[in-house]
Amino acid sequence: MKIDVQLTTARKQKPASDQLVFGKTFTDHMFIMDYTAGTGWHDARIVPYQPITLDPASTVFHYGQTVFEGLKAYMTKDEQILLFRPEKNMQRMNRSNDRLCMPHIDEEFALEGLKQLITIERDWIPTAEGTSLYIRPFIIATEPYLGVSPSKRYQFIIILSPVGAYYKEGINPVKIAVENQYVRAAVGGTGNAKTAGNYAGSLKAQEVAEAAGYSQVLWLDGKEKQYIEEVGSMNIFFKINGEVVTPALNGSILEGVTRSSIIELLQHWNIPVTERRISIEELYQAYKEGLLEEAFGTGTAAVISPVGELFWNGEKLIINDGKTGELSTKLYDTLTGIQTGKVEDPFGWTVRVLENRVSI
Amino acid sequence: MKIDVQLTTARKQKPASDQLVFGKTFTDHMFIMDYTAGTGWHDARIVPYQPITLDPASTVFHYGQTVFEGLKAYMTKDEQILLFRPEKNMQRMNRSNDRLCMPHIDEEFALEGLKQLITIERDWIPTAEGTSLYIRPFIIATEPYLGVSPSKRYQFIIILSPVGAYYKEGINPVKIAVENQYVRAAVGGTGNAKTAGNYAGSLKAQEVAEAAGYSQVLWLDGKEKQYIEEVGSMNIFFKINGEVVTPALNGSILEGVTRSSIIELLQHWNIPVTERRISIEELYQAYKEGLLEEAFGTGTAAVISPVGELFWNGEKLIINDGKTGELSTKLYDTLTGIQTGKVEDPFGWTVRVLENRVSI
Repeated sequence: MKIDVQLTTARKQKPASDQLVFGKTFTDHMFIMDYTAGTGWHDARIVPYQPITLDPASTVFHYGQTVFEGLKAYMTKDEQILLFRPEKNMQRMNRSNDRLCMPHIDEEFALEGLKQLITIERDWIPTAEGTSLYIRPFIIATEPYLGVSPSKRYQFIIILSPVGAYYKEGINPVKIAVENQYVRAAVGGTGNAKTAGNYAGSLKAQEVAEAAGYSQVLWLDGKEKQYIEEVGSMNIFFKINGEVVTPALNGSILEGVTRSSIIELLQHWNIPVTERRISIEELYQAYKEGLLEEAFGTGTAAVISPVGELFWNGEKLIINDGKTGELSTKLYDTLTGIQTGKVEDPFGWTVRVLENRVSI
Repeated sequence: MKIDVQLTTARKQKPASDQLVFGKTFTDHMFIMDYTAGTGWHDARIVPYQPITLDPASTVFHYGQTVFEGLKAYMTKDEQILLFRPEKNMQRMNRSNDRLCMPHIDEEFALEGLKQLITIERDWIPTAEGTSLYIRPFIIATEPYLGVSPSKRYQFIIILSPVGAYYKEGINPVKIAVENQYVRAAVGGTGNAKTAGNYAGSLKAQEVAEAAGYSQVLWLDGKEKQYIEEVGSMNIFFKINGEVVTPALNGSILEGVTRSSIIELLQHWNIPVTERRISIEELYQAYKEGLLEEAFGTGTAAVISPVGELFWNGEKLIINDGKTGELSTKLYDTLTGIQTGKVEDPFGWTVRVLENRVSI
């Protein structure tokens, strides 16, 4: 499939690096392609960033058939554009598509569309320390039909947003409250798909936690409310007595690309890392015995988000004196180093965007 | 707030009564109002039915903040327009709004907007037996921001769709498969809110059931996968040894308006009805003992949907010889009779739309 390119005639003003807010500013262009049952994906195009026009009866508004991804492009010191394991995002998007009864995308073609879009928008990639170009591919169901059944029409869209440093004053631990009332996902639900409904359902717990002075919630499993699943919209890791533990993928936990990379990195360093079920009670006991050395969330936006305090059962668990741990720092530095081309990439994780691929 | 009215200059062709398909045809106009944080709801208007134009970064596409309702308008024999307990829908919409961190609507004003819209569209209300005008109020989050937090902008929209008789050849039992793998909702999730994500997550189980020759699934609870919750997107009732039983509202079951009405109707008739926890095992035992007399789903679209066969654990449970039960028929006739003004309404459930309220 050919990608039609229509360039804007009115380029926007780019915000200063220190003025960038996550997900508020978008670049000049977007990638779109359409899906029609029977025909498949068609009309791939790069067009000026513009509103989407949809029938008010479109499935996405009523029955939430939608999946999305999040990844970043980085500008290296020698002005190469790097993506971090983008094929992982496209693979996961197709796993999400399966769960939501949505059509597969051609992963290679979607990645090609992304690369062309980024090449056109290369001047939008910020270069200051910690900044990057956030990439949001998403698919929405667009058939105007109120029957509860999979849509026969979809749009796949990629939008780009330059984002500032997540930690403006260096990597900084957050305070987390263990969530006992609300549930993010249950086994058999959509928790392991990256789909809108999971995030809609999470807002209430987040609102309650914020009102109590916490920045995120620690989600427990939907069945027994005992086992740790995720933190906010990130995966979670604990360092207990020298061993790193993260909840095993159980069907309700999202398989994060950063999560996988952390596990591989730890294995590469010969640091023991285990994916297994871990209860909040076990974590508490480890804390009481002085064995809970570090805790950190992992995700595309923050990469590593250290947890300095965990509120559970009326008690504040202060982890590593509320400071960023040694391992958290090393993981953050290494992973962001690889992503930005400053540190050698022994895994072949980074993908260079070759800019001679577009001729327009 | 005043409701601005802008009428279309190009009225659509109305389909014949026997050509109506649920949720595919929409009327000439729609109701819209906007919400902006700090200002509240504003710019209420009735406009020609038209596409919605949204920024691709709008919250609804990414984080699924949306709620909806479904109800119907009926044309009586003496050409009065009736709504069925519409205030219940507006109340539930606000309960859904609470769960999804979305702003409340003024229930009376929303109902007023609905009545004005229906008055304008009165010629769209079909009059043939079993037909009605389906009403879909919904709210979508429209702020162009990729941070995971409640949107600061929303649109409340009402669209209308003339719908044909649900049972073209009379009320007819369906075959249902008990769902053992997928889960609709868990306590602490969004199951008791009418929001898009619940429906997105349900499509996969429905797809699997249909492939096996079943028209819906019977959902079990997300925790123990033992207790009966809903059927497809309807509530469920069983008549066991003369007593009617429906799963108690437990936080993951949607509180259906038809469900409430059935309970009140049964109480009015002095037929024993109980809201309680009921397991699939208990239901199976009742079946084995010959005590499972009837089973039926309840919802706005079908009103009553009798269950003739239940597939569980490799066994087909044939209920009432696969025929519509006496109580199911009586409930269907009475409820649809009240809704269409053919049967006396001792409860004050129907609301007449007074057509002199619009002057344009």
